[in-house]
Amino acid sequence: MSMAALFRGYRNFYKRSNKHVELSLVSYRSMASKTPVGFIGLGNMGTPMARNLLKHGYPVIATDVFPESFKDLQDSGAQILDCPAEVADKADRIITMLPSSPNVIEVYTGPNGILKKVKKGTLLIDSSTIDPAVSREMAIAAEKMGAVFMDAPVSGGVGAASLAKLTFMVGGVEEEFNAAQELLTSMGANAVYCGQVGSGQAAKICNNMLLAIGMIGTAETMNLGIRLGLDPKLLAKILNMSSGRCWSSDKYNPVPGVMEGVPSANNYQGGFGTKLMAKDLGFAQDTATSTQTPIPLGSLAHQIYRAMCACGYSNKDFSSVFQFLREEGV
Amino acid sequence: MSMAALFRGYRNFYKRSNKHVELSLVSYRSMASKTPVGFIGLGNMGTPMARNLLKHGYPVIATDVFPESFKDLQDSGAQILDCPAEVADKADRIITMLPSSPNVIEVYTGPNGILKKVKKGTLLIDSSTIDPAVSREMAIAAEKMGAVFMDAPVSGGVGAASLAKLTFMVGGVEEEFNAAQELLTSMGANAVYCGQVGSGQAAKICNNMLLAIGMIGTAETMNLGIRLGLDPKLLAKILNMSSGRCWSSDKYNPVPGVMEGVPSANNYQGGFGTKLMAKDLGFAQDTATSTQTPIPLGSLAHQIYRAMCACGYSNKDFSSVFQFLREEGV
Amino acid sequence: MSMAALFRGYRNFYKRSNKHVELSLVSYRSMASKTPVGFIGLGNMGTPMARNLLKHGYPVIATDVFPESFKDLQDSGAQILDCPAEVADKADRIITMLPSSPNVIEVYTGPNGILKKVKKGTLLIDSSTIDPAVSREMAIAAEKMGAVFMDAPVSGGVGAASLAKLTFMVGGVEEEFNAAQELLTSMGANAVYCGQVGSGQAAKICNNMLLAIGMIGTAETMNLGIRLGLDPKLLAKILNMSSGRCWSSDKYNPVPGVMEGVPSANNYQGGFGTKLMAKDLGFAQDTATSTQTPIPLGSLAHQIYRAMCACGYSNKDFSSVFQFLREEGV
Amino acid sequence: MSMAALFRGYRNFYKRSNKHVELSLVSYRSMASKTPVGFIGLGNMGTPMARNLLKHGYPVIATDVFPESFKDLQDSGAQILDCPAEVADKADRIITMLPSSPNVIEVYTGPNGILKKVKKGTLLIDSSTIDPAVSREMAIAAEKMGAVFMDAPVSGGVGAASLAKLTFMVGGVEEEFNAAQELLTSMGANAVYCGQVGSGQAAKICNNMLLAIGMIGTAETMNLGIRLGLDPKLLAKILNMSSGRCWSSDKYNPVPGVMEGVPSANNYQGGFGTKLMAKDLGFAQDTATSTQTPIPLGSLAHQIYRAMCACGYSNKDFSSVFQFLREEGV
Repeated sequence: MSMAALFRGYRNFYKRSNKHVELSLVSYRSMASKTPVGFIGLGNMGTPMARNLLKHGYPVIATDVFPESFKDLQDSGAQILDCPAEVADKADRIITMLPSSPNVIEVYTGPNGILKKVKKGTLLIDSSTIDPAVSREMAIAAEKMGAVFMDAPVSGGVGAASLAKLTFMVGGVEEEFNAAQELLTSMGANAVYCGQVGSGQAAKICNNMLLAIGMIGTAETMNLGIRLGLDPKLLAKILNMSSGRCWSSDKYNPVPGVMEGVPSANNYQGGFGTKLMAKDLGFAQDTATSTQTPIPLGSLAHQIYRAMCACGYSNKDFSSVFQFLREEGV
Repeated sequence: MSMAALFRGYRNFYKRSNKHVELSLVSYRSMASKTPVGFIGLGNMGTPMARNLLKHGYPVIATDVFPESFKDLQDSGAQILDCPAEVADKADRIITMLPSSPNVIEVYTGPNGILKKVKKGTLLIDSSTIDPAVSREMAIAAEKMGAVFMDAPVSGGVGAASLAKLTFMVGGVEEEFNAAQELLTSMGANAVYCGQVGSGQAAKICNNMLLAIGMIGTAETMNLGIRLGLDPKLLAKILNMSSGRCWSSDKYNPVPGVMEGVPSANNYQGGFGTKLMAKDLGFAQDTATSTQTPIPLGSLAHQIYRAMCACGYSNKDFSSVFQFLREEGV
Repeated sequence: MSMAALFRGYRNFYKRSNKHVELSLVSYRSMASKTPVGFIGLGNMGTPMARNLLKHGYPVIATDVFPESFKDLQDSGAQILDCPAEVADKADRIITMLPSSPNVIEVYTGPNGILKKVKKGTLLIDSSTIDPAVSREMAIAAEKMGAVFMDAPVSGGVGAASLAKLTFMVGGVEEEFNAAQELLTSMGANAVYCGQVGSGQAAKICNNMLLAIGMIGTAETMNLGIRLGLDPKLLAKILNMSSGRCWSSDKYNPVPGVMEGVPSANNYQGGFGTKLMAKDLGFAQDTATSTQTPIPLGSLAHQIYRAMCACGYSNKDFSSVFQFLREEGV
Repeated sequence: MSMAALFRGYRNFYKRSNKHVELSLVSYRSMASKTPVGFIGLGNMGTPMARNLLKHGYPVIATDVFPESFKDLQDSGAQILDCPAEVADKADRIITMLPSSPNVIEVYTGPNGILKKVKKGTLLIDSSTIDPAVSREMAIAAEKMGAVFMDAPVSGGVGAASLAKLTFMVGGVEEEFNAAQELLTSMGANAVYCGQVGSGQAAKICNNMLLAIGMIGTAETMNLGIRLGLDPKLLAKILNMSSGRCWSSDKYNPVPGVMEGVPSANNYQGGFGTKLMAKDLGFAQDTATSTQTPIPLGSLAHQIYRAMCACGYSNKDFSSVFQFLREEGV
């Protein structure tokens, strides 16, 4: 067991009972902070995130199922191991960034998964966007092994990941938030503590649901205004100084020609894919169903992004809903 | 015919052909600006608007169908006449602020309507929120009498009207915009030129449709987050620093306890009534249908506000959709 | 004035006051029934309808704006005139079958319209599907000329028109229903009296709204069942013996391979076009908005058919919504 | 191990390899059919179902968590045991009828559950309406113990259960369908084989989704027609002879006064509760999300029933959506 993990164990033992000891452990962790960090999942998001850890002086021990995805990071100085279990054997702080719930389950609880070799006191931070129920399951499984699991999904895309401008929404035991924050702020601009395990996912799901509603609403409104004879730039200006204003109207307008540097200015390439938005809305739908919460617009937004996937928009940015609603028929 | 009207006549005659004359007429109008202004429609919005004209030194000549509504304004110094036709006989700039399309039709084209005695060159500004098609009809009828009609619906409620902080969205002949703006900025913070007659209504309809979508979306999202265990204030904070941000989340949050000074902090009293929002969404629906524009979320928002009216929410602020979606069943 | 029209005049004079005279006039009309019938609008629906009148022994006097559209009917023995006014000069019973409200307004009230030469007592039956408000306007205009206007839109498409199996939904003065029914049953299997003028349109709008909802619902349900592993024919059988049953599931199933002789068996060719359904749903939307009636599913159905038009489905049968929802993305 | 179970074991062994033996086993089962049948879940549905088994001469061995619920059945001659495990010890055919997925999991796999004492070859039929994924899990767990699990949810309510007129939608191994059918047709009019385990649930979910869509659609349409001046009985008649026809319009009309003997004639008492419909639509939503199937109307129907629950309609029949949409506001 590493020193950091050892101290983590003490720290967990003392927490709540001894504020003084707590503080001194925090300062220990800060001192120890340049011990290796594990990173699992080196896709479009994971690679720049791991690179930012390296930039901040953290040794990185990484792995991914696709060998071609870790070449770049290896050249930047990361050590590559064969599987999550091996990473868990070497690092007592591990970040995972994976595409979906089944991958997370596999990486944590699979035959070569993290929990096979995780050390007591290890801090596990999952930045994947997944079903909050899976986050809770992973937290329970980790706790059985003496480790701590936190969910920390991100807001912001590949660009924000490269520039270390992500926002992390963090769920888990509050006492561990400082430890997580130290790593997360090397990869992002903000880390917000949201509550118990799964709360990070919940906050992200909520944000993305409102984002989807705002985007489709903006696309409909701009389209209607244009059909009524309004100039799109003028309409955007009016909305943005009025109560119709939202992020999709003032930062990411879906109408080509209104803004520069957004996917609508680039034929809806890049950005946040329709398929990914449909996936996130699926989580919103699932959690709303299980909590018996009515989400009429959120649910319709989900259906619209799902129908767009059926019509060939899967890989276009989610602002392409403007094109979908506008496209001229035969 | 007053001097101002006389000059307006000339001005219309010369416009397009003689830029130089145009400019000198504009400066004439500016000089003449403290001639009386007519005001028709002294309801909750109209009365404070007219009072702001008085404050800026304009003599006001007003009327309303309900005698009880002009007492206040009379005490403030306005002259009250019997009907719109008489107002038109005395003033060459008239503002109307009425509840619905039929009222506007009556006030302009009825037996005692403005157009019965309107003087050539009179500037008619309608700040009612009505069907843009009616605005266009009124403009044509006014033009036949040699008068100029502009639509200038407002953004902002009774509070903004009192504080002269309204935003006016103005449609009509561009050459008349300066003349309109002079009056409008006595009653509001902004006047935005939107294009030909009806464009002001179009812009307002668009804004309010997106506002309704954002509000319902915010209500759904906040409700879902709360059911998932998030603290409402924290969730609002996260949304407002992320891509879910919109006017309804950051300026007018529908969840009691999140903000002060908004209707949700006051049992949804005051503000902008559900019934009025349903009316505005009806215009969005009508114009979308006639222009064959798909507005899936706008249309569902309309249906939700309509269903709320059926369930007793007509006179509550439109942010009460949070309560509607949340209310516990039997 | 023809004899029939003369008697119609008397009849209107006496109606309500003298039941005995009424009855004898009805028998007169029956006797006179093979006097010429005017027919205006010789499109895909109008031509077979007019031909069925000829088959039943009625002389037909017809016109259409497109000369190429009346060749066929001329060969079958109809007399072709230049314009609606001329038809009105020769016939005291006239049927109109036109594509949209503006055409109806033109054909009735335009410079060469029916009402320019309509004879007192003429029975005018409009089988177009239009805005019920336009039907009411036409009825008022006709009444001013001493003529009687009824709206009688049809259920059933080109096939039903050829086979004289249409259903007519009839609105107008009840006393005239028998006279209308005599002609309508030469062209269809049923004529249902629905109430005052505009009621036929109202009934048709209601039927088509529920039809659209049932069709999209069936398409969604069949698609979901197939994705869950059910055989489509088996699923259709189960629905049709259960409470999910509807006309779209048991007579017009949208899934290729489930039924023969329906558009889904023929690549969605023929049938009732998506564009026409979108038009009818526009009427439903308009009347619902103006009567402040919530129609959440009807409104969403409208939006879906409108979005389908934007995606190239305008001319496919409305059951192609199955394909729209199912189509695989890129 | 009972004789029936023994033969079931043989039968499973021989199935596929020896058609002749198969047939003789089927005739054995038929002969053995009056051996005791287990029944677990004696609620409003389960009690009349079990009583119908008794009527058909089957000895019934039953249990329920609520002692008060088995008094009636005990008086009718059923033997009551303490827990599902004990029932499984005595019967080799067991039917379960439970309110929700967690109850099913408990009754099958809990500490006193069926699978603790189930005999090899036992036929387990679950008539609960639950998540199809849970059905599949139960089937796998049963198979491990050498038993056979089938899902057989019902269409039809308490009335149909009493009159043995239920329809069963059956999923599971096809070779076992005959054995299941024998029991099911003692409790219902039809048993339809739908495919592999979970298919019964899938068929039921699909049916109820289309039912909900048809019901809300009918309610909207009737309401719109009434507002447009149509007589509700006449409108229902027109719809039912036209393409708008569906089960909700012709068998279960939601408008008071149109039909007798339906919940709308009885203040929406009895029938199928809004809360139960919302639950079933939750399954539709979940399965659609997980199979990435767009269900725009199904999803909105879910939201409407969920919102109705929030507004106090939980225990009213699901046709009360007519009242919900119609109710007059303040």
